[in-house]
Amino acid sequence: MTTRHTISVLVENKFGVLARVAGLFSGRGFNIDSLTVAETQDPSASRMTIVTRGDDQIVEQITKQLNKLIDVIKVTDFTGEDVVQRELALVRVHASAENRAELLGIVDIFRCKVVDVSPRSYTLEVTGDQNKIEALLEILQPLGVKEVVRTGRVAIARARDGRA
Amino acid sequence: MTTRHTISVLVENKFGVLARVAGLFSGRGFNIDSLTVAETQDPSASRMTIVTRGDDQIVEQITKQLNKLIDVIKVTDFTGEDVVQRELALVRVHASAENRAELLGIVDIFRCKVVDVSPRSYTLEVTGDQNKIEALLEILQPLGVKEVVRTGRVAIARARDGRA
Repeated sequence: MTTRHTISVLVENKFGVLARVAGLFSGRGFNIDSLTVAETQDPSASRMTIVTRGDDQIVEQITKQLNKLIDVIKVTDFTGEDVVQRELALVRVHASAENRAELLGIVDIFRCKVVDVSPRSYTLEVTGDQNKIEALLEILQPLGVKEVVRTGRVAIARARDGRA
Repeated sequence: MTTRHTISVLVENKFGVLARVAGLFSGRGFNIDSLTVAETQDPSASRMTIVTRGDDQIVEQITKQLNKLIDVIKVTDFTGEDVVQRELALVRVHASAENRAELLGIVDIFRCKVVDVSPRSYTLEVTGDQNKIEALLEILQPLGVKEVVRTGRVAIARARDGRA
């Protein structure tokens, strides 16, 4: 079965790890829909969040191989788990006297922050899950989207302590 | 001179590109502080945002080599440019009857969103530049930070159209 997988990989913060992890996916012909790597609380470790689509069995094989890589500390496949997932996007949209009111209405509905304003454009910051980001981009399209920069997805397991 | 560089790379959305770009940095012994790869408006292209620290001249060489890679469409070094830069972090913090009021005060000051609540923890979503994220983590530390997942930085040039 082909599913979209969100895989979290805790790695040693050393050069070369990223290239090896990326190589493992590309060696199997797997494309990565999104990937983030950033520092953690522990300066010696980084966390990668990888979103990929593919056959469940092959993703399971890749996960096993990731676990065997030197410098990989822990691998978690969040697929089917109860997680909070978010991404951030910066979107520059055409702004004119004619569309400004409509644009500000959308900003309000989607709880965007306006992070830059020029005479002819607004740059919006928005966070949410993939569906929300894509709904926003779709509604902004007719106004004139000039540029989109997305972080890709990060995910964190929901806390289970003492909850029913 | 050693500076922190933010490099934006527009690439063809094909497998293998990420591994090649990552390999170029690690081959030079460069560590990547953070990296994001995500889709753009054009389904055939992805955008990578790479934050690295290193000697200016060597980063310039890497940028030139990136430009020569097959599947690399455009490379922009944002260092010293006027950009908006943001990242998103999900932070799970210990919550108890004793610290809940203090925690909610911090949530308010840093304009976090509470995205998950359990009897013993809160999960916060926060966006901002690196300084803001780090200031929040520092202030949360004594309360008990259980987990941090960060996207790494994305950047977008400020619009210059018709602005003084």
